Amino acid sequence: MFINSIARYVPAKVLGNEHFARTCGISNEWIVERTGILERRMCPEGENTNTMGVEAVNALIEKLGYKPQFDLIIGATYTPYDTVVTLAHFVQHHLGIPDIPTLSVSTACSSILNAFEIVEGYFATGKATRALIVGSEHNTAYFDDTDKVSGPLWGDGAVAFSISKERQHDTDMEVKHIHTGGAATVGKATEAVYLRPWEGIFPMPIGRDVFIHACEYMYKESIKVLEKFKLSIDDIDYFIPHQANLRISRHVAKELQLPDEKLVLNTHKYGNTGCCGFGIGFAETLPFIQKGQKILVAVFGGGYSFGSMFIQA
Amino acid sequence: MFINSIARYVPAKVLGNEHFARTCGISNEWIVERTGILERRMCPEGENTNTMGVEAVNALIEKLGYKPQFDLIIGATYTPYDTVVTLAHFVQHHLGIPDIPTLSVSTACSSILNAFEIVEGYFATGKATRALIVGSEHNTAYFDDTDKVSGPLWGDGAVAFSISKERQHDTDMEVKHIHTGGAATVGKATEAVYLRPWEGIFPMPIGRDVFIHACEYMYKESIKVLEKFKLSIDDIDYFIPHQANLRISRHVAKELQLPDEKLVLNTHKYGNTGCCGFGIGFAETLPFIQKGQKILVAVFGGGYSFGSMFIQA
Repeated sequence: MFINSIARYVPAKVLGNEHFARTCGISNEWIVERTGILERRMCPEGENTNTMGVEAVNALIEKLGYKPQFDLIIGATYTPYDTVVTLAHFVQHHLGIPDIPTLSVSTACSSILNAFEIVEGYFATGKATRALIVGSEHNTAYFDDTDKVSGPLWGDGAVAFSISKERQHDTDMEVKHIHTGGAATVGKATEAVYLRPWEGIFPMPIGRDVFIHACEYMYKESIKVLEKFKLSIDDIDYFIPHQANLRISRHVAKELQLPDEKLVLNTHKYGNTGCCGFGIGFAETLPFIQKGQKILVAVFGGGYSFGSMFIQA
Repeated sequence: MFINSIARYVPAKVLGNEHFARTCGISNEWIVERTGILERRMCPEGENTNTMGVEAVNALIEKLGYKPQFDLIIGATYTPYDTVVTLAHFVQHHLGIPDIPTLSVSTACSSILNAFEIVEGYFATGKATRALIVGSEHNTAYFDDTDKVSGPLWGDGAVAFSISKERQHDTDMEVKHIHTGGAATVGKATEAVYLRPWEGIFPMPIGRDVFIHACEYMYKESIKVLEKFKLSIDDIDYFIPHQANLRISRHVAKELQLPDEKLVLNTHKYGNTGCCGFGIGFAETLPFIQKGQKILVAVFGGGYSFGSMFIQA
C-alpha cells in the first residue's frame, strides 16, 4: 500500500509552561528537564477531536489538490469527543461519501498504526482501495493541570493520511511493513497510565514503567524491521518515534546508534499528542523527503501497545 | 472464517421499569408500549465494560472446554471504561497472551460487525488465524434516568466470539458474508443520538430519525444478503437484528415477511445492550441451532452505522 500524502492540524492556541507554574507550582526548567516540552497546543472552546480531524482532512485534500474517492475511513483516537458519532463518522459526514466502511479505533498511542494494519486487511480482501486514516487527540480535554507529573505532558493535534492500494502518483511512498501488538501482559500495563473518560482526568501514576517499556519495545520493533529488510541503521534516512517525551525518543535513537539529524522530534513544541505525534512529525518532514529515502516509525503507548512501520519514498 | 463458539454475560442485577416511575414519572405500560422493554440488567459497583468483557470471555472458554491460542483480540464498545487500557487490552492482560494484535473499535451499535470485518482482513493478510472478539456495553454508566425518552432504553451486557480462519470443529459455523458501512451522510446522523463521555449522559434527542433509518438500513442489508446468496426469506432459519427496540425489530421482520418464530429478540429482558444485543441473542440461540441452518444478522446504530452478516451452521 502507498501513502499519497499526509497533513496535520494543530490548534492555534499555544499553552506555555508558565501555565503550570500557576496551576501546580512547577517551573519551565523543571518541565523542560524532565520532558523536553517547551509548549503545547490546546483546543479553544468549540474545537474538539472531531473538528480537529476535519481540519486535518481539509488540509490533506488541499495538499493533494483533489478529493479522493475514499472507500474506507478509519478514525484513531483515545480522546473521543463522541463514542457514537465517532471521529470517523464525523469525517464521513463532512466528506459526504455515503455507505462506505467507517470505523474508529483505539490502542492508545499506537492507534494510527493499528489503523494502517486494518487498511492493509481491507485492501487484502478487496473491500477497499482508497483509504483515509484520520487521527486526532484532544488530550487537554482530559488533562489535570494541577498534577505536576502528567499535566504538562499533553497537547492537542490531528493528522490525516491518504492511502491507496496501488500507486497513484510518482511521489507516493510505499508502506513496506506494518506491525502492531498489544503488550498488556508486561509490567504495570493496566495501571501505569489510563484514561477513564467519565473521571475527566488523564493520570500516569507509574511513568517509570511506561518509560522502561517504551524504550524496550520501540528499540526491539526497530531492530526487527532492520533485520527483516537486511538494513543497517545507516540505511535509514528518518526515524520517527512516538512523540511522548524527548528523553524516550533520544534514548531509543542512542540505542539504535542513529545520528541526531535523522531523528524526527516535535514533543518540544506540541507535547505528547498521543497517537498523532509520529504522524504530525511525518507530515512536517514530508517536504524534505527525497525519492527512495527510507523512513522507520516505531511507537509505544498505554494499554500497553506498540507498533512499527517501514516506508520507502 | 468460522465461529467456534459464542458466550454472553449480563450482570445479575435487574433494573425493572418501576425505577423510571420514581426517576421520571413514567409507567411500566408507557415504557412497554413504546419500546417493549420489561427490564434490563445494570452493572453494580465494581463491574464495568472491561470486567464484563472478561466475564464473557471466561464463559466462552468454559463453553469451548479449552483456551484457544488466540493471535488477535478485538474489543467492541462505545461505552469504554478506559480508552487507553481498552477493553481488548484488559482482556489480553487477563488471558496473558503476549504481543499479539490487540485493538478496540467503535462504530456504535454495529461495532461487533466491524470487528468481524477487521478479523476477515487479518485472516486475509495471514497475520492471524484465531481471533477473539469481545463486545461489552456499560450503557447505564452513561444513561440519564431522569430522561423519559432515552433513560429506559439502555441495558448492560457483554458477548465473546471465538473465530478461526479454518474449521476447527464439526459444530463450527461458517461466516459466509460480512458487510459494514457508515451512514453518517443520511438524516440527522450526527445529532439524533450521541455519547460524549465527559458529559456523562447518553441522549437520543431525535429518536424518530434513528427509527426510520434503522428500519430502512436493516431491511436493505437483509435483502442484499438474500439476493447475493439467491435465497428467499423462507431459507433463513434465524433472523437476529440489532436489539434496539422491539418495534424496530418487528417492523423489519414484517417487511421481510419473516415468520415470528424465526425472529430472535431479547430487548424485552435486557433493553438495548448496544453492539452486544445481536450477539447476546446469538449466544442464547446457539443451543437450538442445527447443522446446516442459516442465520441472518442485520444491525444499525448511531453515528450512523450499519452492517449485515450471514452464517451457516
